[in-house]
Amino acid sequence: MTELFDAVFARGRAAEAVSSRAWLDALLRVEAALAEAAADTGYVSREAADAVVSAAMPENFDLAAVAASAADIGNPVAGVVDRLRELVSEEYQEAVHFTATSQDILDTAMMLVAKDAVAAVMEDLRACEDALLDHLVREEWEHEPRLWGRTLLQHAEPIGLTNLNGRWNFGIRQARMALEGLGFPGALSGPVGVNWSKRMIPEKDLRAHYLRRLGMDPGLYLGHTSRGPVVRIGAAAAEAAGACAKVAVDVILLSQNEIGEVREGRPGGSTSMPHKRNPVAATCARACAARTPGLVATLYAAMPQELQRSPGLWHSEWETLSDLLRLTGSAAAWLRECLEGLQIDAEAMERNLREAEG
Amino acid sequence: MTELFDAVFARGRAAEAVSSRAWLDALLRVEAALAEAAADTGYVSREAADAVVSAAMPENFDLAAVAASAADIGNPVAGVVDRLRELVSEEYQEAVHFTATSQDILDTAMMLVAKDAVAAVMEDLRACEDALLDHLVREEWEHEPRLWGRTLLQHAEPIGLTNLNGRWNFGIRQARMALEGLGFPGALSGPVGVNWSKRMIPEKDLRAHYLRRLGMDPGLYLGHTSRGPVVRIGAAAAEAAGACAKVAVDVILLSQNEIGEVREGRPGGSTSMPHKRNPVAATCARACAARTPGLVATLYAAMPQELQRSPGLWHSEWETLSDLLRLTGSAAAWLRECLEGLQIDAEAMERNLREAEG
Amino acid sequence: MTELFDAVFARGRAAEAVSSRAWLDALLRVEAALAEAAADTGYVSREAADAVVSAAMPENFDLAAVAASAADIGNPVAGVVDRLRELVSEEYQEAVHFTATSQDILDTAMMLVAKDAVAAVMEDLRACEDALLDHLVREEWEHEPRLWGRTLLQHAEPIGLTNLNGRWNFGIRQARMALEGLGFPGALSGPVGVNWSKRMIPEKDLRAHYLRRLGMDPGLYLGHTSRGPVVRIGAAAAEAAGACAKVAVDVILLSQNEIGEVREGRPGGSTSMPHKRNPVAATCARACAARTPGLVATLYAAMPQELQRSPGLWHSEWETLSDLLRLTGSAAAWLRECLEGLQIDAEAMERNLREAEG
Amino acid sequence: MTELFDAVFARGRAAEAVSSRAWLDALLRVEAALAEAAADTGYVSREAADAVVSAAMPENFDLAAVAASAADIGNPVAGVVDRLRELVSEEYQEAVHFTATSQDILDTAMMLVAKDAVAAVMEDLRACEDALLDHLVREEWEHEPRLWGRTLLQHAEPIGLTNLNGRWNFGIRQARMALEGLGFPGALSGPVGVNWSKRMIPEKDLRAHYLRRLGMDPGLYLGHTSRGPVVRIGAAAAEAAGACAKVAVDVILLSQNEIGEVREGRPGGSTSMPHKRNPVAATCARACAARTPGLVATLYAAMPQELQRSPGLWHSEWETLSDLLRLTGSAAAWLRECLEGLQIDAEAMERNLREAEG
Repeated sequence: MTELFDAVFARGRAAEAVSSRAWLDALLRVEAALAEAAADTGYVSREAADAVVSAAMPENFDLAAVAASAADIGNPVAGVVDRLRELVSEEYQEAVHFTATSQDILDTAMMLVAKDAVAAVMEDLRACEDALLDHLVREEWEHEPRLWGRTLLQHAEPIGLTNLNGRWNFGIRQARMALEGLGFPGALSGPVGVNWSKRMIPEKDLRAHYLRRLGMDPGLYLGHTSRGPVVRIGAAAAEAAGACAKVAVDVILLSQNEIGEVREGRPGGSTSMPHKRNPVAATCARACAARTPGLVATLYAAMPQELQRSPGLWHSEWETLSDLLRLTGSAAAWLRECLEGLQIDAEAMERNLREAEG
Repeated sequence: MTELFDAVFARGRAAEAVSSRAWLDALLRVEAALAEAAADTGYVSREAADAVVSAAMPENFDLAAVAASAADIGNPVAGVVDRLRELVSEEYQEAVHFTATSQDILDTAMMLVAKDAVAAVMEDLRACEDALLDHLVREEWEHEPRLWGRTLLQHAEPIGLTNLNGRWNFGIRQARMALEGLGFPGALSGPVGVNWSKRMIPEKDLRAHYLRRLGMDPGLYLGHTSRGPVVRIGAAAAEAAGACAKVAVDVILLSQNEIGEVREGRPGGSTSMPHKRNPVAATCARACAARTPGLVATLYAAMPQELQRSPGLWHSEWETLSDLLRLTGSAAAWLRECLEGLQIDAEAMERNLREAEG
Repeated sequence: MTELFDAVFARGRAAEAVSSRAWLDALLRVEAALAEAAADTGYVSREAADAVVSAAMPENFDLAAVAASAADIGNPVAGVVDRLRELVSEEYQEAVHFTATSQDILDTAMMLVAKDAVAAVMEDLRACEDALLDHLVREEWEHEPRLWGRTLLQHAEPIGLTNLNGRWNFGIRQARMALEGLGFPGALSGPVGVNWSKRMIPEKDLRAHYLRRLGMDPGLYLGHTSRGPVVRIGAAAAEAAGACAKVAVDVILLSQNEIGEVREGRPGGSTSMPHKRNPVAATCARACAARTPGLVATLYAAMPQELQRSPGLWHSEWETLSDLLRLTGSAAAWLRECLEGLQIDAEAMERNLREAEG
Repeated sequence: MTELFDAVFARGRAAEAVSSRAWLDALLRVEAALAEAAADTGYVSREAADAVVSAAMPENFDLAAVAASAADIGNPVAGVVDRLRELVSEEYQEAVHFTATSQDILDTAMMLVAKDAVAAVMEDLRACEDALLDHLVREEWEHEPRLWGRTLLQHAEPIGLTNLNGRWNFGIRQARMALEGLGFPGALSGPVGVNWSKRMIPEKDLRAHYLRRLGMDPGLYLGHTSRGPVVRIGAAAAEAAGACAKVAVDVILLSQNEIGEVREGRPGGSTSMPHKRNPVAATCARACAARTPGLVATLYAAMPQELQRSPGLWHSEWETLSDLLRLTGSAAAWLRECLEGLQIDAEAMERNLREAEG
């Protein structure tokens, strides 16, 4: 954690999953899998593939140098490939970056990175659901607490606490299920995206071996300029962030001094007012989520990618998807913290009902 | 068609499906189904339900008057209910708007409207797919035409025409399948969204009958402040629009005078330059689609709906989702027109290849 | 008012200013001014110009027919020009659409429409400011009322009512001043945007006469593909909407039953809960404003307009800017209604302070 | 440069201006100026102020530790203040963070950071304008080159090269002037934003001294929940990015092999196709700019900040504005590189005209 706002916006495992280091690792895993698949299918020798696999270790790569290479061709794959060629002996060069184009490697790495980040988000969402279920089982309650149902922030009719918790749980679980339904397709389509080159023998099915090596579903396909799978990940992430924000906003509202029906277990202070009990976790969850709708719009706006590779729209996806997953993961991590420590004040709920009815 | 830009932005059946008239019809269908379900479950008499069904006919409602009613409570359901009460005789009043809240009716109507619009979009997308398949079977071609694969808008390697068409088809088909996977849940949760009221007997399952009457899946649920189903429809629509825009942009690029590999069958002119052959259908498809990412962001930003009904975020969905579906439908309708008439110039493709190789 | 949601989203004069009818009127004013300017500069006879001016009357044009014409060239100017040619006798045809291209006419009309809509927004904003100042001068208050300052929705320190009102006023006034600073440039650049044609004699300065006839500043320039002036209008509108939403949200929060420090003068009811006193005006103001950020993003995304006229990005501006201005105007109109009737409960403010201090 | 995509998206001086390091420096400058102003106005001794100024040196602060502190109160100012208190001797503690709240410090620092970043953007924009002017003065051209004016990407009429260059220049210059017109107000409003505390003597005007010490205009005001100045910076940045993207897209289009009227001086290669001459600088400029509309929407969506400090919307601005300025700066830096090396092929322009006319 070295960046000034990371404690707020890069919380939880998803932030690590989309870090530069994780991206570089993923690029190397993809190049290694490609070499192995080329050996599996007999295009290159097993020794050559092994040489690439040995070379494609993160410790052999300087992240800054790889990053700098992107200035020349517009993406960092060139730096990875150049360094691999340096590391692999002359006789095994054919196994490096075999028939691939930089978009194949980067797209596949992006999907590996996204898959890890989504798994992290789902874990925190599930913890939120568990925390909400826990709050329903309190020994000390003889009866289910009741509280005001509030519509347009005005008293409407009483509801049971299970209605509140249950609705929160429902939104989060639905969002988690949307994430679980996502596909993470790999790409190996070659220079012009047509899955073919003069050197390629279709029956050997290099692509299937490559995807199998990466644990990816060969039935899924990510076209160089067909970006449905990218926007679908972005959409499910933004839905998860929105579902977290809905609960966070409710916690903030119910924590207001005059209402006081819930409070965070570890509220935050203030540099000027030591008495403050701010709902910091809910506040940060909301802040993270508030940044996601704009990012998901960027992904949709990047869909009309021209002909066989877009000059710029493709590039605009990389950090956008990373940021979106990081912020969704941070929202989920903050909400988990908020809900695991949440204190529910059933007496305040009853008091608010009674006073308004009186 | 009375609005100045409707020929561009309200093309195709989706525009009708989201019109004010279609919304009002849907609101009435929902009130009618609710009355029938109340009779099905024995809460009200069949005669009372029949009276509501008879009253709930579009010809009994003045759209402007219903619309004006929204100024009082912030949505047009009050106007529908008030008019229904006028139309139904005193003895059957209990069957009007039985146990429902305005959000139940409006949300369910929104889903009926969306379902129709999505069906219209899918029909045009399928026609685009068919048109693309047709272009692959031309008697006059002995061999598959080849053309430049262009990456970053620069010549890369030759591809076959099937690669171009196939990729276009793939993106559109994927988007159509995402639309086909959507759910359209109805809502009947009552004033505070807890699916319960003092008058309600759970075993009677009013909600199941109501949804069955509307042809909606009772296994799906739309919470008053759990808006996952809404953003998922928005996301799939925006993906469809983006998939259309991708093809439209490619058509525009390949239609450039110096390239000339495709041209629209019915190109547009100019008020100042009669010689122009503008790719108008592709241009309009792109224009429609360019407006969708911002709208989908609005839907995601509306997710954190407060407590039991949001003061404003809920309202922000209605026209946004309508506009999104209308524009997606228009993009698909324009692309269909573009592709059904598209002329592919295999000679120009070969010439461009030859000249660059020479 | 014929559309189902217009009472919420098409409130105030801005909605009329951006209506199809207003757009058509503006297109006709521009064509008329162009003919007059052509006579002013001696390119055409005064009689010819007069013939165009007489023809360019709204009653001579069928909106639906003009709208339908857009299907052919992708914008409705062709329909206007064709109808003008029908209406003007053969000898005066040269004065119709003199040297202009459709984008000149449409862009200039868009600016006239926007200028009117912005004036309407400013009027409502100024009324909001006046209402806020009125609330500070209440005879019955001996001392300035105090209330809780609330940060992160938690009690912080007491503030005076002037602090609350003053801050609200400040945000609205700043937004109004941003609107007042806007420029509304006209366009007359000809087919390829170079302000020149074979028939043109620079010294005659047709453009200056045309703009003068329209009351537009000849020092401002709107390039066919330099869209700064368009996004600047959109940005100032979105700022105004955001400033309105800030106040609306505060009104909603301070209207909560447990806080009760303000309430709307004409609160709204509910179809299911007759006791409800919903802050409907503030809710609708917020709903309108919530739809603006996505629209302003669409305008920025449309900036990279290709070469001398964009295939689609230009088109995406028309309804987007109209909608943005309409929604901003509706937000301002709703907020005005909210603030003009707002009841401030100084006793509740004091009570909330006292109870928390106790 | 340590991050994987920084060569593309963190190019130019703006990226440094918004770095974590720059933010921390700005926070420290603000705390130092506050102490000095407190001494200027006699609230604290000069010795106490000097002690704070000496302590507030970047080398005394561990960025990671400050960042980590944000987990407790939701922003990193607490970490800065705590560390200052450690560094300053007991007797001078009163001069630390005098009467300020964390939002005062963070908002003022954000404006200092933004001001530096905007200056960097303007410098690169000006260099773009210079490069475009240079391209108009080529000794070898006897006559101004002519090229196709292209509307909807179709040949329209010939234009002169000055028309192309001049239009590009115009859009960039307008965007630079919008940046030049920006205000960067500082904040010192205290805990509840009312510019007042029990300890405060209005006549002393601490705020004016504080702003003067920071070189900021005391006539400008940034309210804790009146965010007009923030969105205005975001809007001008997004306009600049859009203006850069417009030129970048044109360069990409005119660089197409079949057109070949311009080419970049340092085109990029490919990992799979060594013959490629990709317009990498224009591609990267476009990629950076494509990410800005979504970010500017996030800023507008954050405007309705609740009461005296928003739980989350305020926080959502920090990285969003930083990212927006970084990406705008990168777009400008890439475009500068593109235009400074741009080769204009007047022969190709003439040939394209001739061939189409023939």
